[in-house]
Amino acid sequence: MVNHLDKSNNPIMINVGNKKITERIAVAEGEILFDKQTFKKIESFKSKKGSINNIAIIAGIMGAKETSRLIPLSHNIQIESVEIDISRNKKKNLIQVKATVKTNAKTGVEIEALTAVSISCLAVYDMCKYMNKSIKINNLRLVSKTGGKSGNFKK
Amino acid sequence: MVNHLDKSNNPIMINVGNKKITERIAVAEGEILFDKQTFKKIESFKSKKGSINNIAIIAGIMGAKETSRLIPLSHNIQIESVEIDISRNKKKNLIQVKATVKTNAKTGVEIEALTAVSISCLAVYDMCKYMNKSIKINNLRLVSKTGGKSGNFKK
Amino acid sequence: MVNHLDKSNNPIMINVGNKKITERIAVAEGEILFDKQTFKKIESFKSKKGSINNIAIIAGIMGAKETSRLIPLSHNIQIESVEIDISRNKKKNLIQVKATVKTNAKTGVEIEALTAVSISCLAVYDMCKYMNKSIKINNLRLVSKTGGKSGNFKK
Amino acid sequence: MVNHLDKSNNPIMINVGNKKITERIAVAEGEILFDKQTFKKIESFKSKKGSINNIAIIAGIMGAKETSRLIPLSHNIQIESVEIDISRNKKKNLIQVKATVKTNAKTGVEIEALTAVSISCLAVYDMCKYMNKSIKINNLRLVSKTGGKSGNFKK
Amino acid sequence: MVNHLDKSNNPIMINVGNKKITERIAVAEGEILFDKQTFKKIESFKSKKGSINNIAIIAGIMGAKETSRLIPLSHNIQIESVEIDISRNKKKNLIQVKATVKTNAKTGVEIEALTAVSISCLAVYDMCKYMNKSIKINNLRLVSKTGGKSGNFKK
Amino acid sequence: MVNHLDKSNNPIMINVGNKKITERIAVAEGEILFDKQTFKKIESFKSKKGSINNIAIIAGIMGAKETSRLIPLSHNIQIESVEIDISRNKKKNLIQVKATVKTNAKTGVEIEALTAVSISCLAVYDMCKYMNKSIKINNLRLVSKTGGKSGNFKK
Repeated sequence: MVNHLDKSNNPIMINVGNKKITERIAVAEGEILFDKQTFKKIESFKSKKGSINNIAIIAGIMGAKETSRLIPLSHNIQIESVEIDISRNKKKNLIQVKATVKTNAKTGVEIEALTAVSISCLAVYDMCKYMNKSIKINNLRLVSKTGGKSGNFKK
Repeated sequence: MVNHLDKSNNPIMINVGNKKITERIAVAEGEILFDKQTFKKIESFKSKKGSINNIAIIAGIMGAKETSRLIPLSHNIQIESVEIDISRNKKKNLIQVKATVKTNAKTGVEIEALTAVSISCLAVYDMCKYMNKSIKINNLRLVSKTGGKSGNFKK
Repeated sequence: MVNHLDKSNNPIMINVGNKKITERIAVAEGEILFDKQTFKKIESFKSKKGSINNIAIIAGIMGAKETSRLIPLSHNIQIESVEIDISRNKKKNLIQVKATVKTNAKTGVEIEALTAVSISCLAVYDMCKYMNKSIKINNLRLVSKTGGKSGNFKK
Repeated sequence: MVNHLDKSNNPIMINVGNKKITERIAVAEGEILFDKQTFKKIESFKSKKGSINNIAIIAGIMGAKETSRLIPLSHNIQIESVEIDISRNKKKNLIQVKATVKTNAKTGVEIEALTAVSISCLAVYDMCKYMNKSIKINNLRLVSKTGGKSGNFKK
Repeated sequence: MVNHLDKSNNPIMINVGNKKITERIAVAEGEILFDKQTFKKIESFKSKKGSINNIAIIAGIMGAKETSRLIPLSHNIQIESVEIDISRNKKKNLIQVKATVKTNAKTGVEIEALTAVSISCLAVYDMCKYMNKSIKINNLRLVSKTGGKSGNFKK
Repeated sequence: MVNHLDKSNNPIMINVGNKKITERIAVAEGEILFDKQTFKKIESFKSKKGSINNIAIIAGIMGAKETSRLIPLSHNIQIESVEIDISRNKKKNLIQVKATVKTNAKTGVEIEALTAVSISCLAVYDMCKYMNKSIKINNLRLVSKTGGKSGNFKK
């Protein structure tokens, strides 16, 4: 059985009405992978890096708030906190995006955290695509979650 | 210089007013990578696979239309076609999502194609996350583009 | 064959790239049907009727602009005009909503006109539902269309 | 007096702050009415019917989540469940759409259920309009509601 | 320190998870200032003034519901009431817009009330701009707030 | 007569179908006015000012793209460029926001430029409101426009 399909295989928005309101935290990560040359170029953007980070972070935070409008069967819930961290791995020529989303709700925020990272990575891609068209978004995954019936998870 | 920043490093929506309207096509791909067991389980969903595909495809098509509201500095343009193909790679335990977006506009649709693939992959993730929390979205990239001043690109 | 499905029965946003830009006009209608008593009560709202009409009309105009975000496989196009007429049929106890939508585009605005009428009727319903729960929205249909390859239509 | 207008006949979003949070369920229905020939043609779409249903259902579920942005004076509330059933009446040449929406909130979900049905019907219309332009959406109505101060309702 | 920036000056959506749910009310005001002649002309629109008011009020109410999608670091919360009052000051040639927004939530609705007034004023501007291009929106400010840890405020 | 009302005083989205596509540019400005102490405090945020500016600018650019969804009777058009400049007037204790919006379309972008400035100012307000509740948004106005039948305007 698939949770999001009923007996006739039709899509449903799962009933969370009887679930408990608990604090739920999800952390997701993803990477934007560059070729060496493009990464170096971006690294050389000393003063510009702050702006690029800000744009990517805001895209991620606003993306988290859009989740229920983008993911067809997800629930619209109140998000109580979004934090997005952007870091660089010079050895691997990649920018890492990490999103931490919190709520007190009847359902978790895993997909909100993953959507935040996705949109944040796409915003970086959008700004860098003129330099090189071989940029990749990679390794988008859940890192941890707490709260809810299915218990905690840590990668 | 970064295209999306002005001289003072402030974000701008680039002026495309003087660009020519040409046909522009972008193809992007991405993968949802499962552990062997979860992938097998999904493969066993004979009749359900159609519904899962439909949901993922519609999420991608609708996601393409949302691009300009998600990616801060992107332009709102009229999209003339979106096609999303979902295939399976049984050896690698992954579902592949490919989006082809077309327009006649002053700017390309690369970011629209990538957004379509991202949202489509996230929709699959959302439906499968109850089975295993280690699913990954990987290898999101532009495959080809045609049209526009920067010329054609093919990976 | 269904236009909106490809060979594998997957949903697609039809390619309108090769269609011609022509003036396209669509007119749609619908009705909100009341029991006699509720209709009479609404008719007695002398000065209030203007406000109710305004709210319904604005809901319809804004709804027309939302069409591409609501109807999964529809195209996002520029709408050049929306007019919504609200009239009353005292014999049949109903309020009639008529929407006329115009554009110059590669695809028609039938679904935009129908969405405008739908949302306009729902807005009336929303304001009247406290009086009676048996209100019905009925007879939502295309009245005429002009422009485009499939030619003109008039009911 | 009209609930949604103040003393000067100006529109207001009614204050629900003092209402109790209770479980609220609303069921709405509507029909897409075809001429005999078109209905037969759709009936013959054996394998395609699943896709058409899926598209209509997803449109309805996502439409339910958009309600507060479409209906001017409605409240934005958290929806806890949406189920959409699509059935066929071969004698009457019609497709029936039924939406069941649940929440625990200070206000009901009647308009959310009706919006879900509307958008779902419009999505079916959109996919079938190339076959015949005389399709009608009919009989959109509330079937039942439970919860809230105004008590239960069943048609 | 700025509340909306973390230690590295990156934007964050502040964690309101540990705040108490209390009733929160915010009142904001703003003005649309006309030259004498344009104001007189608008004053002469006897029967039309109702429609203009309605449009501005609905724009404000719907704008309040859009706040979390417009203001990057604001929280998406359930709004329980929005009232918008429009009045005229004939001596100063201005139209005044006042919005009262209520909720029971972990964070206040000041920015929702201000957004409502802003959008309402812009809607008036939009309708009047053909008469004179020197119209100004002025004096947009918080008038009072109650509820929440920071206590009450009254201008 | 009011452009946005028909003969019966009902709101309409004006028909721009017969207007010419011309380049249209609109420049709007607005100010966020602080008390002396709060302004000084913000001025002391050396390294943080870049982030605050970025957030305000992105809010403005994204706000411009939302215009047709916020202003009931405005047209949804393709925006080809948005630039937002933020400057400070230390004598007057205010932050100035200026938006320049460009398009090639059948209708102008005045309201898009004004919406961009409004949302940008509200984003600044949102970040600063914890410091002082007497901040004001002031003097929001059109500075210049070019293109279109009504000719050029410069304040």
